[in-house]
Amino acid sequence: MPDTTAPLDSSTDREPLADLPGGVAPVLPFLYVAWADGMLTPAEIGVVRDRIAAMDWLSERDRAQIAAWLDPSAPPDASTYFGWVRTMRQAARRLPSAEGADLAGLGEALAGLAGQGDGAGIPAEARRALEELEAEIGVVGEEVVRDLLEAPAPPEEERRAARPAFSVGALQSLLDAPHAETRDRIRDLLSDPFFAYPEPGISNDAYRTLILQWVQRLGEEGIGSLAYPEWAGGTGDISRFIAAFETLATHDLSLVVKFGVQFGLWGGSVQQLGNEEQRRELLPAIGRGELLGAFAMSERGHGSNVRDLQTTATFDREADEWVIDTPTDHDHKEWIGNAARDGRMATVFAQLVIDGEGHGVHGFLVPLRDEGGAVMPGIRIEDSGHKMGLNGVDNGRVWFSDVRVPRTALLGRYASVSPEGVYSSPIPSAGKRFFVMLGTLVGGRIAVGAAANSAAKAGLTVAVRYGARRRQFGPAGGPEVVVLDYLSHQRRLLPLVATSYGLNFALHALAEDFAALDADADTREVEGRAAALKSMASWHATRALQEAREACGGEGFRWSARIAHRKADSDIFTTFEGDNTVLQLQVAKGLLGGYRQEFEDLNAWGMLRYLREQADVRLGEVNPLARRNTDEAHLLDPAWHRTLFERRERTLLVQVAARLKGRIDRGDDSFDAFVEVQDHLLTLARANAERLVLEAFQDAVERVEDAQLQNTLRLTCALYALEHVERDRGWFLEQNLFDGPVSKAIRTQVNALLGRLRPVAVELVDAFGIPDELLGSEIGAGRMPLDP
Amino acid sequence: MPDTTAPLDSSTDREPLADLPGGVAPVLPFLYVAWADGMLTPAEIGVVRDRIAAMDWLSERDRAQIAAWLDPSAPPDASTYFGWVRTMRQAARRLPSAEGADLAGLGEALAGLAGQGDGAGIPAEARRALEELEAEIGVVGEEVVRDLLEAPAPPEEERRAARPAFSVGALQSLLDAPHAETRDRIRDLLSDPFFAYPEPGISNDAYRTLILQWVQRLGEEGIGSLAYPEWAGGTGDISRFIAAFETLATHDLSLVVKFGVQFGLWGGSVQQLGNEEQRRELLPAIGRGELLGAFAMSERGHGSNVRDLQTTATFDREADEWVIDTPTDHDHKEWIGNAARDGRMATVFAQLVIDGEGHGVHGFLVPLRDEGGAVMPGIRIEDSGHKMGLNGVDNGRVWFSDVRVPRTALLGRYASVSPEGVYSSPIPSAGKRFFVMLGTLVGGRIAVGAAANSAAKAGLTVAVRYGARRRQFGPAGGPEVVVLDYLSHQRRLLPLVATSYGLNFALHALAEDFAALDADADTREVEGRAAALKSMASWHATRALQEAREACGGEGFRWSARIAHRKADSDIFTTFEGDNTVLQLQVAKGLLGGYRQEFEDLNAWGMLRYLREQADVRLGEVNPLARRNTDEAHLLDPAWHRTLFERRERTLLVQVAARLKGRIDRGDDSFDAFVEVQDHLLTLARANAERLVLEAFQDAVERVEDAQLQNTLRLTCALYALEHVERDRGWFLEQNLFDGPVSKAIRTQVNALLGRLRPVAVELVDAFGIPDELLGSEIGAGRMPLDP
Repeated sequence: MPDTTAPLDSSTDREPLADLPGGVAPVLPFLYVAWADGMLTPAEIGVVRDRIAAMDWLSERDRAQIAAWLDPSAPPDASTYFGWVRTMRQAARRLPSAEGADLAGLGEALAGLAGQGDGAGIPAEARRALEELEAEIGVVGEEVVRDLLEAPAPPEEERRAARPAFSVGALQSLLDAPHAETRDRIRDLLSDPFFAYPEPGISNDAYRTLILQWVQRLGEEGIGSLAYPEWAGGTGDISRFIAAFETLATHDLSLVVKFGVQFGLWGGSVQQLGNEEQRRELLPAIGRGELLGAFAMSERGHGSNVRDLQTTATFDREADEWVIDTPTDHDHKEWIGNAARDGRMATVFAQLVIDGEGHGVHGFLVPLRDEGGAVMPGIRIEDSGHKMGLNGVDNGRVWFSDVRVPRTALLGRYASVSPEGVYSSPIPSAGKRFFVMLGTLVGGRIAVGAAANSAAKAGLTVAVRYGARRRQFGPAGGPEVVVLDYLSHQRRLLPLVATSYGLNFALHALAEDFAALDADADTREVEGRAAALKSMASWHATRALQEAREACGGEGFRWSARIAHRKADSDIFTTFEGDNTVLQLQVAKGLLGGYRQEFEDLNAWGMLRYLREQADVRLGEVNPLARRNTDEAHLLDPAWHRTLFERRERTLLVQVAARLKGRIDRGDDSFDAFVEVQDHLLTLARANAERLVLEAFQDAVERVEDAQLQNTLRLTCALYALEHVERDRGWFLEQNLFDGPVSKAIRTQVNALLGRLRPVAVELVDAFGIPDELLGSEIGAGRMPLDP
Repeated sequence: MPDTTAPLDSSTDREPLADLPGGVAPVLPFLYVAWADGMLTPAEIGVVRDRIAAMDWLSERDRAQIAAWLDPSAPPDASTYFGWVRTMRQAARRLPSAEGADLAGLGEALAGLAGQGDGAGIPAEARRALEELEAEIGVVGEEVVRDLLEAPAPPEEERRAARPAFSVGALQSLLDAPHAETRDRIRDLLSDPFFAYPEPGISNDAYRTLILQWVQRLGEEGIGSLAYPEWAGGTGDISRFIAAFETLATHDLSLVVKFGVQFGLWGGSVQQLGNEEQRRELLPAIGRGELLGAFAMSERGHGSNVRDLQTTATFDREADEWVIDTPTDHDHKEWIGNAARDGRMATVFAQLVIDGEGHGVHGFLVPLRDEGGAVMPGIRIEDSGHKMGLNGVDNGRVWFSDVRVPRTALLGRYASVSPEGVYSSPIPSAGKRFFVMLGTLVGGRIAVGAAANSAAKAGLTVAVRYGARRRQFGPAGGPEVVVLDYLSHQRRLLPLVATSYGLNFALHALAEDFAALDADADTREVEGRAAALKSMASWHATRALQEAREACGGEGFRWSARIAHRKADSDIFTTFEGDNTVLQLQVAKGLLGGYRQEFEDLNAWGMLRYLREQADVRLGEVNPLARRNTDEAHLLDPAWHRTLFERRERTLLVQVAARLKGRIDRGDDSFDAFVEVQDHLLTLARANAERLVLEAFQDAVERVEDAQLQNTLRLTCALYALEHVERDRGWFLEQNLFDGPVSKAIRTQVNALLGRLRPVAVELVDAFGIPDELLGSEIGAGRMPLDP
């Protein structure tokens, strides 16, 4: 069992005892004995107090302080008490021989270490007074000292009350940056009883009503319109909106999804694809949550491949209208949020057709229901039915049959059609237009990635706090051990905590870069990062919530632990806003093409040229010394971590390019060639995401000014890096990037890092800053009672 | 895209064409042309029929058959048609040159391959007649032959209708052995509308009522008492009971858990811990589902560490009674199935105390409710509350306060107390007694492992069938591709299918061995295997259901897919009946101690001796040639697979023994030493389970008599083996058990196996034999309509 009180950096053992209270040092052992479990009666504590009050070699101020600490009816707080314990343990370890030391001796030694009497000890009278007191209260000092050295770690609750080596608030500020005030606003809002979680057995209908009320309240509070222009009640800052979304996701996930549908997808489609007139007309009411709407893109047969959507919008020149149609019964819109019950309008994505000529997928404003809530003529809506989770969201299926909307219902920022039926667009290429349109999904992907990480953080908060309290098994005859003190338990939880930290920094940096893009910037790098991090974060959430559930055992299965709820709701995060596997394949293709263009748009020769560029890059030899270096300093070196992650990504890129080139050179169809190397493409995309996270994490660590905090974060980052290298060590070994002994040393080092981070594990999740009201977990509450 | 029509084993290409219908061989190309999409009109088909009817060189029987096949109003069934296609493809590939062959020529070649005319071809008049017919119907034979060779694979639905190379029924029989008839009985029973799934929004109360009715019906049908003696309505065969349990688990998991509580845990505790009188009195009513009861072992603070249960049963000599007490409010029984609502009695596990002396944990028969359902005096019961899943089971918390039961309420097989308060037991050691008592859980562990595998099979059935129908993306301008044809999709599903096969064989063998144990056999090997396989199977279920959900995309999130339900319900399988991590640590300790005794019972010297035995074993050098051999034959060699799995387990065992020995030699506390090597212990336990599964799988393959079937299973087993080696290749590389090139070749070989198994993927899951009524999945039904 690791010593949970050991400082993170063992070098501090050689520094002065920080916690040692100068003047009271000699009597510290008596203060400890007075309050140690069951050692003294209240009456005996009173005796100690009276004796010490009479020791006039102590300063008056010290005596007053000691008397206050020895009031039998008012024990010191846990933080103070464990401060004494920590100090005495540190001191006792430095004694030339702890064997045989009594309380008076320990007190004298403490005084020496505290610098009293220039290390020459305390006055002889003082020493005598202490010895008398020791005899009077009848404790065997040697035993006390020995117990002190061997005592089990203080219970987690009390340990937490003790001052950590850094401020949890400061750590939370790092995670909250750069929109701490927006996050705090959400935390405050959602802590209101109005947002209290419903009972678990709630009907879908009542749940939807509740979630709708919540969403509308957020609209009233101006949260929904954060990303909109100021004239629409917003701040024009998409990054602030994403921060709000991310924080909402520490609460009920039906709320965050319905919120995202209304303000992000529906409102976002108007904001980003609409012309000035459309935006002025609709955005303010959308932002206030008054005009509820849907984003009708996915179809039954086309969830991922939206370029081939089947819904048509055909121009009727006579009527000056668009005619929206669902060609067959199977081509209906599917999973459309806000459609089954609440939506009044929708942005419907359809193939724009004029005189039999298709211009590709475009968005159209289509009313779904009238003022009274009746579905409009020609439209059929069905409920998507009961789901694994997110049953507070009214997903629906929509069919269109000869539904007519005015010519001006075409969202007009990137396309317009004249009354004569002449199509025009500022973007001439249909392919490019399609990608610009899909670009509207990028903000949603970043937000979903961040929300997934919030769900992961919530689950890990519950599991780490519970693990720090739950006792099970223990040494023969001894007390049971807190389960987080088991290596197996640390192994399952702490690397996930580290990954949530890394994703936090990477997603926040991405949101800022996304918000900073100007209108004609090349968006592909940001889009690629969004796809990579959305995949990684949502898979991370699935894994973290699974581990959290299992780590809490049966308690994690209880609804009131609020892991089940988050697990079921967030499961679909790996699928919606872009299926993770499809996104990863896009990421890999983007890396191969240098983000120049989707491969489908290239002919074989164009593709070959790019692949050749990639495959021709030579990778230098790896330094044979580095390959065999098992020194701890080397293993913990951030630069080495970065080299490994970069090298892996680059090598995979070159290898997959060479494979593709080989296949296409010999005449394979490019589609088949890509299918055959899919496993390599997925590996490449994963390596890319993990490298992005490492870089953002390391950059964040570098920016920290407080040394203690920076040290903790550096270790957390090293845990992220090494645990990921360990998981993929098969690849590194195959490629000779390091040898077997290094691989084994990495495993040992991961274990060592777990031991070093264990003492601050609870602080690491406390810094996620999830209020108890939002966490909603009985076993995970921050202010939980002590285990009996 | 892999060629889905390639035979599984290329060597069969050199064997006779099994499907070639002898006499009709020469006209086969015309039969094909007649029915191939859009090639001939009904009138032209009539012409072909009339011409062939006149070919008197054909036998009369063949001509009648051909005429039947060429009835324009009655097309042949898909199975027949695709049989022709397959035969001709095989034949066309063997032609010296397919280029330029016309229909007549192909027919002649077919006849030759079928052995007509001793390979000398068909009569010249016949050849002429065929040429004339070819000219008359006006098809270009060369094109037909070329299309035939290049034709895309038949649509999945039609391919499935075609006769596979082996019988799905025969494959299912292998999986069902040795209790096929019991399984079929359950399948029939549960296919009755009485067992139809409830609506998803059902209240917990209604759900519990439904599940209770189902359990009682199974009791009436004699399913609950299968393991009991014949006088109690059973067969005395625990393995048959486990088979029933496993099959039930392909349906609603609340049912199987409540069934397990009633008949396995409650009834099982009476059967195994009760004396003859207690068994005669209670078992028949329990088995019929009339006397509902609970198994009250777990406590809030003691879910895993049951040796330290807090509930006490104190002997009151005066009253000749036991007094059952829950010492503090926190020591209540927790998660007790059947307790919250339905249970009338319980086996309560408590510390047996006589005159202040404890004799360890024992089971006591305690009435929970009276005839009217009122809770008995001194007992307090609360509902365990809403759960992630299994809400059809009434789990409860139970407190006892001065609850009195007669002296004879002590379950009396292994312990009894005389009226004078003298304790006696046939097992003198308290530690041994404790393990014998825990042995009652072993059957439950095997059953839970098998049930977990059933849940995994159900999820995989849904995902594989759906993946074989769902189309998404495709080559430019071409049709969209069935997603199961993507390597990435095969990668996520097929290895899991292979693992379910392996677990199936391993768990069935284990159930047989368990059932065959006689009363005084050493049970530790079987207990160790049960712990290892329960852990592996339940984690496998969690993973398989997660992958199944994701592989089905949004459709998998729908309740009607019936993945959500299984996922939520089975999540706790990794925790109950022994937490997986705790079980794995026990497995590892068992391996270290040669199953001699739990380590806690050994003193440091005893432990050292065992560790030394293990650590002293020398592992021979690995053959350097084998380390570098990348030949396919070597990579697919079952003996090599077994060597790798055995070597890994043995090496891990020796290494962890050496580590422990080092720590204990230097004076570490044994508890701390074990905690420090926990990660190694868990790795060892995993390696052990995977080896057990490989062995059982290979043994099962060896026993198969049908060559085609055996070949398919051998490839499935190789996929299991190599994919597990690939996942753990980091370890194998670290240990120099193979080199980097072999590691890469393994990955390539896994991909090749996926391609070879893809064509039978649907048959592999069909053979799990889950009727649509039990599967309960809209998208996973076996008789699903073709995708439009």
